[in-house]
Amino acid sequence: MTDIALIQSAAARLAGHARVTPLLNAPLLDALAGRRVFVKAECLQLTGSFKFRGGWSAVSALDPATRARGVMAYSSGNHAQGVALAAQRHGVPAVILMPADAPQVKIANTRAYGAEVILYDRATEDRDALGAALTAERGLTLVKPFDDAQVIAGQGTCGLEIAEQAQTAGVTEATVLTCCGGGGLTAGIALALESRAPALTVRPVEPAGFDDTARSLASGRIERNAAATGSICDAILTPAPGALTFPILRRLCGAGLTVTDDQALRAMALAFAHLRIVLEPGGAVALAAALFHDDLPDTVICTASGGNVDPATFRMALERYPA
Amino acid sequence: MTDIALIQSAAARLAGHARVTPLLNAPLLDALAGRRVFVKAECLQLTGSFKFRGGWSAVSALDPATRARGVMAYSSGNHAQGVALAAQRHGVPAVILMPADAPQVKIANTRAYGAEVILYDRATEDRDALGAALTAERGLTLVKPFDDAQVIAGQGTCGLEIAEQAQTAGVTEATVLTCCGGGGLTAGIALALESRAPALTVRPVEPAGFDDTARSLASGRIERNAAATGSICDAILTPAPGALTFPILRRLCGAGLTVTDDQALRAMALAFAHLRIVLEPGGAVALAAALFHDDLPDTVICTASGGNVDPATFRMALERYPA
Repeated sequence: MTDIALIQSAAARLAGHARVTPLLNAPLLDALAGRRVFVKAECLQLTGSFKFRGGWSAVSALDPATRARGVMAYSSGNHAQGVALAAQRHGVPAVILMPADAPQVKIANTRAYGAEVILYDRATEDRDALGAALTAERGLTLVKPFDDAQVIAGQGTCGLEIAEQAQTAGVTEATVLTCCGGGGLTAGIALALESRAPALTVRPVEPAGFDDTARSLASGRIERNAAATGSICDAILTPAPGALTFPILRRLCGAGLTVTDDQALRAMALAFAHLRIVLEPGGAVALAAALFHDDLPDTVICTASGGNVDPATFRMALERYPA
Repeated sequence: MTDIALIQSAAARLAGHARVTPLLNAPLLDALAGRRVFVKAECLQLTGSFKFRGGWSAVSALDPATRARGVMAYSSGNHAQGVALAAQRHGVPAVILMPADAPQVKIANTRAYGAEVILYDRATEDRDALGAALTAERGLTLVKPFDDAQVIAGQGTCGLEIAEQAQTAGVTEATVLTCCGGGGLTAGIALALESRAPALTVRPVEPAGFDDTARSLASGRIERNAAATGSICDAILTPAPGALTFPILRRLCGAGLTVTDDQALRAMALAFAHLRIVLEPGGAVALAAALFHDDLPDTVICTASGGNVDPATFRMALERYPA
């Protein structure tokens, strides 16, 4: 069970290994939004997303003999890179199962972090069966992308930093918008803020049409998305909130919000112009909500959860929204 | 005269107003460079460049009665925005003389920071005469872009942060590469490091063909550029090092380096991919030198001095260097 003590232990293990990312803001962005907007720039984290926090937390929490046999992850993107670098820096093997049609740059980067990447065909091969066979054969430990207590604790360290940085910025009350896939980051931040800054309330943000978390929060039980693909926000198209994350979200979060792909692209262009950071679509949905939703308070803190975007998509955002 | 005491006073005035920018790094960037590369991300400073430090330092150092009458600056870009926001936050007027052909986004942003922008025609009007008339008539104080003791002191606060962040990162010896125009940032950092981290040696980096500082350091006297335009690195195309900055550079800096416009564009694309920050061409020359020069030590710290780039130029960099 993830609680504040587990998050604090994760923070102690991450110190000196993960980056304390800055809380950015810009007067001209505030003017556009009509409110104060702070951006927790997790795109500046090692490997380009908050996923390194959870990866490091999980790998560092293993007992040394287990860890030495290596870790495994399933992922087409940010979790792959986070686990790969965490394993490399612990000097242990990482095996990452990636779909053969994952973006080439993400496959290349995962390999560059020293992982053994095994490609599978989404249409004809069973990922879980492949993974189970590999973990059994090699004694690997599976690091799940969000439904794991130590992964949630690692993502929660982002919340500890938000609590401290908000206080330094003089922010005593705010809505914290998170980019939400399976809910690991959202749950971790919500737990950290419950303990450290209870006047900061978390609301998850999702792509329109992939609002499993918003609908789950509304109905009180886990709801699933109808489709697995169909938004450019690939990093957060998880089928449903997790068994561990959802009870935390249900207890601590306000209602979910959604934004369109176009709003995410426009937020990317505005983050380029006013914050000079690179966001991927899925990492820009919280900022998009802060900019384009009306029913929010005077002060909003957004996670900018990742920046692993291919150049063509980024160029499209700048072309479509040049100012 | 700028010295460490003046820099420390500036740092005290900037505390809580300017941002402490992060020192970034990325394992895959190190692999490309063949050395450890740290990047001082001044593009994340308020107004998108280090110029806010010098602007704040100068405006905050004025006696209140003088300051209340307002400040003036000449600039087509980053200095304009830095002075404008510093004046706005002090509640005093700013008048910025900008060439009518300056980028529209820079004119618009300077106005958005509350400054009165006066446009002049570079071909037919005398900027200095216009400025002198305005300062006399309105009692404004001119804030020069680099050849001013308090401006250099403000830029030097970036050097204080580098000294502290390098120590935290375990870096005891390194070359510090600066993006160099008139030498305000370079001189300020060199003075700060002389006092706080003398094993970090500064070397200025300029665009090929606009290497007035490199040639001045080689000859021992102030040399000028042959042309005023002709590189995309517009932020650092200053005609010559300053009367105040050059003696500091001469005493403290190693030899200058140059990079081509194409190398600056490639560094922008690599900063996009591996650091997820937005750099303008003139803000990427130090990183370009770290990546593409061979005669550098194992550890290099680069200033990434600004990120105010128009979307079309950024798209061109990504299109030309997609990976």
